[in-house]
Amino acid sequence: MGNTWGRLFRVTTWGESHGAGVGAVIDGCPPRLALSEADIQPDLDRRVPGQSAIVTQRKETDTVRILSGVFEGQTLGTPISLEMSNLDMRPGDYREVMEKYRPSHADYTYEAKYGFRDWRGGGRTSARETAGRVAAGAIARKLLAVRWSVTVVAWVSKVGTLTVDCDVEKVTREQVEATPIRCPELATAEHMIAAVEAARKDGDSLGGVVTCAVRGCPAGWGEPVFDRLEADLAKAALSLPASKGFEIGTGFAGTDLRGSEHNDEFYMESGRVRTRTNRSGGVQGGITNGETIYFRVAFKPTATIMREQRTVSVAHEDTTIKGRGRHDPCVLPRAVPMVEAMTTLVLADHALMQQAIASP
Amino acid sequence: MGNTWGRLFRVTTWGESHGAGVGAVIDGCPPRLALSEADIQPDLDRRVPGQSAIVTQRKETDTVRILSGVFEGQTLGTPISLEMSNLDMRPGDYREVMEKYRPSHADYTYEAKYGFRDWRGGGRTSARETAGRVAAGAIARKLLAVRWSVTVVAWVSKVGTLTVDCDVEKVTREQVEATPIRCPELATAEHMIAAVEAARKDGDSLGGVVTCAVRGCPAGWGEPVFDRLEADLAKAALSLPASKGFEIGTGFAGTDLRGSEHNDEFYMESGRVRTRTNRSGGVQGGITNGETIYFRVAFKPTATIMREQRTVSVAHEDTTIKGRGRHDPCVLPRAVPMVEAMTTLVLADHALMQQAIASP
Amino acid sequence: MGNTWGRLFRVTTWGESHGAGVGAVIDGCPPRLALSEADIQPDLDRRVPGQSAIVTQRKETDTVRILSGVFEGQTLGTPISLEMSNLDMRPGDYREVMEKYRPSHADYTYEAKYGFRDWRGGGRTSARETAGRVAAGAIARKLLAVRWSVTVVAWVSKVGTLTVDCDVEKVTREQVEATPIRCPELATAEHMIAAVEAARKDGDSLGGVVTCAVRGCPAGWGEPVFDRLEADLAKAALSLPASKGFEIGTGFAGTDLRGSEHNDEFYMESGRVRTRTNRSGGVQGGITNGETIYFRVAFKPTATIMREQRTVSVAHEDTTIKGRGRHDPCVLPRAVPMVEAMTTLVLADHALMQQAIASP
Amino acid sequence: MGNTWGRLFRVTTWGESHGAGVGAVIDGCPPRLALSEADIQPDLDRRVPGQSAIVTQRKETDTVRILSGVFEGQTLGTPISLEMSNLDMRPGDYREVMEKYRPSHADYTYEAKYGFRDWRGGGRTSARETAGRVAAGAIARKLLAVRWSVTVVAWVSKVGTLTVDCDVEKVTREQVEATPIRCPELATAEHMIAAVEAARKDGDSLGGVVTCAVRGCPAGWGEPVFDRLEADLAKAALSLPASKGFEIGTGFAGTDLRGSEHNDEFYMESGRVRTRTNRSGGVQGGITNGETIYFRVAFKPTATIMREQRTVSVAHEDTTIKGRGRHDPCVLPRAVPMVEAMTTLVLADHALMQQAIASP
Repeated sequence: MGNTWGRLFRVTTWGESHGAGVGAVIDGCPPRLALSEADIQPDLDRRVPGQSAIVTQRKETDTVRILSGVFEGQTLGTPISLEMSNLDMRPGDYREVMEKYRPSHADYTYEAKYGFRDWRGGGRTSARETAGRVAAGAIARKLLAVRWSVTVVAWVSKVGTLTVDCDVEKVTREQVEATPIRCPELATAEHMIAAVEAARKDGDSLGGVVTCAVRGCPAGWGEPVFDRLEADLAKAALSLPASKGFEIGTGFAGTDLRGSEHNDEFYMESGRVRTRTNRSGGVQGGITNGETIYFRVAFKPTATIMREQRTVSVAHEDTTIKGRGRHDPCVLPRAVPMVEAMTTLVLADHALMQQAIASP
Repeated sequence: MGNTWGRLFRVTTWGESHGAGVGAVIDGCPPRLALSEADIQPDLDRRVPGQSAIVTQRKETDTVRILSGVFEGQTLGTPISLEMSNLDMRPGDYREVMEKYRPSHADYTYEAKYGFRDWRGGGRTSARETAGRVAAGAIARKLLAVRWSVTVVAWVSKVGTLTVDCDVEKVTREQVEATPIRCPELATAEHMIAAVEAARKDGDSLGGVVTCAVRGCPAGWGEPVFDRLEADLAKAALSLPASKGFEIGTGFAGTDLRGSEHNDEFYMESGRVRTRTNRSGGVQGGITNGETIYFRVAFKPTATIMREQRTVSVAHEDTTIKGRGRHDPCVLPRAVPMVEAMTTLVLADHALMQQAIASP
Repeated sequence: MGNTWGRLFRVTTWGESHGAGVGAVIDGCPPRLALSEADIQPDLDRRVPGQSAIVTQRKETDTVRILSGVFEGQTLGTPISLEMSNLDMRPGDYREVMEKYRPSHADYTYEAKYGFRDWRGGGRTSARETAGRVAAGAIARKLLAVRWSVTVVAWVSKVGTLTVDCDVEKVTREQVEATPIRCPELATAEHMIAAVEAARKDGDSLGGVVTCAVRGCPAGWGEPVFDRLEADLAKAALSLPASKGFEIGTGFAGTDLRGSEHNDEFYMESGRVRTRTNRSGGVQGGITNGETIYFRVAFKPTATIMREQRTVSVAHEDTTIKGRGRHDPCVLPRAVPMVEAMTTLVLADHALMQQAIASP
Repeated sequence: MGNTWGRLFRVTTWGESHGAGVGAVIDGCPPRLALSEADIQPDLDRRVPGQSAIVTQRKETDTVRILSGVFEGQTLGTPISLEMSNLDMRPGDYREVMEKYRPSHADYTYEAKYGFRDWRGGGRTSARETAGRVAAGAIARKLLAVRWSVTVVAWVSKVGTLTVDCDVEKVTREQVEATPIRCPELATAEHMIAAVEAARKDGDSLGGVVTCAVRGCPAGWGEPVFDRLEADLAKAALSLPASKGFEIGTGFAGTDLRGSEHNDEFYMESGRVRTRTNRSGGVQGGITNGETIYFRVAFKPTATIMREQRTVSVAHEDTTIKGRGRHDPCVLPRAVPMVEAMTTLVLADHALMQQAIASP
């Protein structure tokens, strides 16, 4: 279980790293949305390994096929099945993983849960699993853009100890894509790239933070109590591999402030209710207020490092292990399309939820 | 929608602040668990307003009644209906809220969503709604303790700019309950209480952080991909009123580290797989590894302050508003049982999920 | 589990026959629907025991209270909590049930499932549980009428071996309510009443069939594949106590026909697509076609009879049992509002599902 | 929506008749179940078109591929993705369907719902969609057999006006498979085959009934109130194409009886609680009692006939249509594996539900 997201815009993903492929089935996408593989492939290409010198060199092309749910260029309202075949499978690289648990990976916990695991490339725990999410997210992104003019853009705002603080109202996808590190501030981006290179040379890895902004969202999306919009965004963020934290609006830093410093006062602007500040991050009481939604997601340093570490074997004996093969020294650049994808899935689902109760 | 939590241990809450009462229905609690109101009331008493000088003086007694699902002192396996009548309803206090949107409250967003709202005490957006969660959580807590010896304890680790860093392996509920601020370190607790008092005198409010530890959890709980344990914990945390952030293990601070500094090495201890450090926070790849789970939840400063603020009216005219009545200058002490409750709901649900797929 | 119905219009019921009460929580009812207890009570009064000489004489008044979700006479969009206190509790009547399993009741199966049961009046297995459904159904009924002008009417079409075949386009609630047996054809109704009386005198019981018609339903409601409208109607019907069969349109009798005799030809009428016949029962491929939906639900004879029957004790010894107390010799009249309630719940849910994917 | 079945053993199907293929994703299958394509293919071969002279001659081979979730011959606990490519696509056969609504098909209702439809072979409404269900059901069947020794067997008990009444305790799959009509009584089977042939020659079609028996089911499966086992079985049955009715135990015929004639008396047999008769059909109050579960499903005559019928065009003009191409004159033989598949999906789901609440 656990492989389905959403209530009305529902995504189920499947696939192991070194099986036949990975994929997703989307049930609940409204009919008559213009859709082809060309709408999906660009986001997959941003997630794909091997796209630049600072990410893993595993050669997947992640070419998506739409197997159902689209006819004559439009969605039918029926399930959309997406498939990406696995091409670059080298099980030989992973023989040591069969016998030992990699530190801070899920080898041990999967075995504790299921009594059995696919040790080839991490099986289902591989970041390859996120290809299905990114593909599904591209459909949600198109729906949001076409129906409600909502846009989602994410970027790398921290790598190791290097941080930037960009204006959440202004960052564009073009700025983000200008460098392989996906940090929109070029000067810092270069330092970040250098830091990743240095870590790689040390056989080590770095963590960081992705910031995400949603613009153009109407007021009124989000459900009370358990399914608040920020609750679903937090779940979406923490469902990503290597993520360890989520904060919306002022987040943890906002706890330093007093209420008089933190509250967002309302005012009228051209007949529309606005807030003078946006410390809430576009959401109040779980429901959007029409301001830009923004939040940050923390990713730990990549667990696989090219250094010897102590661990235990599947036979429960103390031993050591040393990573090898093709790995990201820093997941942050590839995490950007993943965060965007999960965000679009959350929003598309809530958009349909809101439509369900609206007056006809 | 949005008022139900869980897949197998399911909780649905209901109730507005100034309606007839609040309550919860729990569907999926296993049969033959010894249960009475006495198991539930203590947690409610920790959440209740008026329990100390530093929280709101609204006089609710939150006396819980079990209306169904329990017979001869044991659960039947049928839905457990819990009800807490509302006693101290003073709609007169809230007349201004009828006409104006309180800054950083959900008055405006609820109206944007539903075209209608209960302005008495915030209606469904009131923290009073959490009484149903806390009551349900007490049942989950008992189930976890009886069946799996799992314990959950939370505490206030930050108020305004005052912080403590307690050992997540050692804090006890007794230490937490020793002061009304629910910070287990007594010296800091006194400073925190003074800070809350000072904020109150200024008609202002403070935010802070709750830390939560889960001990005794077996390895193997949590579902892959979307329903990772930490994803559900993050959603649970962000579903609480005024929460703005969640981090597990090293969280945001962990992004400063390199992989070689962050990884948790495995070793054998008395035949059991353990990790030498616990920077992961007890979860790897979404599944528990048997170590203590710990995480932090950020709460913004209380939105209601006794100062004049600019806002807009329901007629969409610029105006001002000033809080009055009985409000918490700092929600942190009362947030502790709420965080515990949501945590127990997450864990009970995952425990049953794991039991469903176990070999008979 | 199993106590929640629906995806968007969600109903969770609770309560045992001799506990504090029974109730329901409705999550997902759209906001701004005019609603008060007066909209609900009439349907409950049709379900209540003791309403006529031919049903059980248990004295429940089933007075409903709305505890949440309604403010100033309108729904808020938040959960609507309904409660009906239990008044006429006589546990003494049921002592024998504590020690023996009643034939064709759920005493044994509940004990097999839960290892424990509430023997007082059947506990959760009592038809008293349906009060929550009927109350929730009354809200769904109002929503359907106000928003889509859809009406639902059911009647008794068979008692024992006595049958009527009424025009599903024409039966009115007034005709149904004209006699306590709820058969709209007066001559047959009298024979049915006599048959029930005769069975009662014999300490025996009768079964029968309820027919239900839904008029005014637009084309396009229902989801493909698993959640076809007729699939949900069948589940709704078979979820009722004592129900053993469901058929829509021509149902089982239609299997005698050839395709050329059974197909419903289309034609245009005043710009609207109609069918010349309606053997399909208003649904094709799981989706409404705009014609009247009609179906039949079979109810077995009441299991409780005033005769000695062989059975086994909870100690697993062969023994005998004889019913006593207050029981319906025929559940059919009281099943009518239950079938209507479940039907409205199915339709309201599908109406919102369809609205969710409609073009804005 | 509507393309997912189950709560714990969850199946999502996808695919149109003339798209790239059809398939299913199973999430929730317990780990370490031995599984390969060889477990699935036999059931698909029973559903496949062209298997005998009395079914459609469309040439699908329905060769299944397992794309994920199985490693070294065992299930991983992760999603199992199944795919069957479409081979025999002849869109040319269906051009008339593009312009006209076929009577008693779902062409019109899909267009009313989605404003758009795939007219090639009925698209998603084609019985080809059931291949995904049958494949998923084969996995559920294996799980039930291996873990709980539960077996499911269905057969054709009525074709047109020809009926058989077989002993639900004794029919074997071998008897069922002995003739292409899948009626275990050979003499009647021959008459049925002749009747189908006669209908085909007339360009007409026949309906009928499938009876299904579940043997070896332990007592205690099924959830109270809305998710009764018979409610889920009814939904499963009515979700199949062309199905119009469901009855369990004595069903509609049982309404002729009095309670004293209908009740199933309990007795002890070798330390086990048994019933002397089984008019209930193995279920009481929604929960299995350990006796054989049996039920009947009505299927209408195939809607596609080789005769001219009146209908309307998509342009809403009166017209006529005449079926051509390759169609089943009687769906009953191919409905047998479909009914079995849905039954195993219901049971596997309930088995896991029961395991979730069992004492550890």
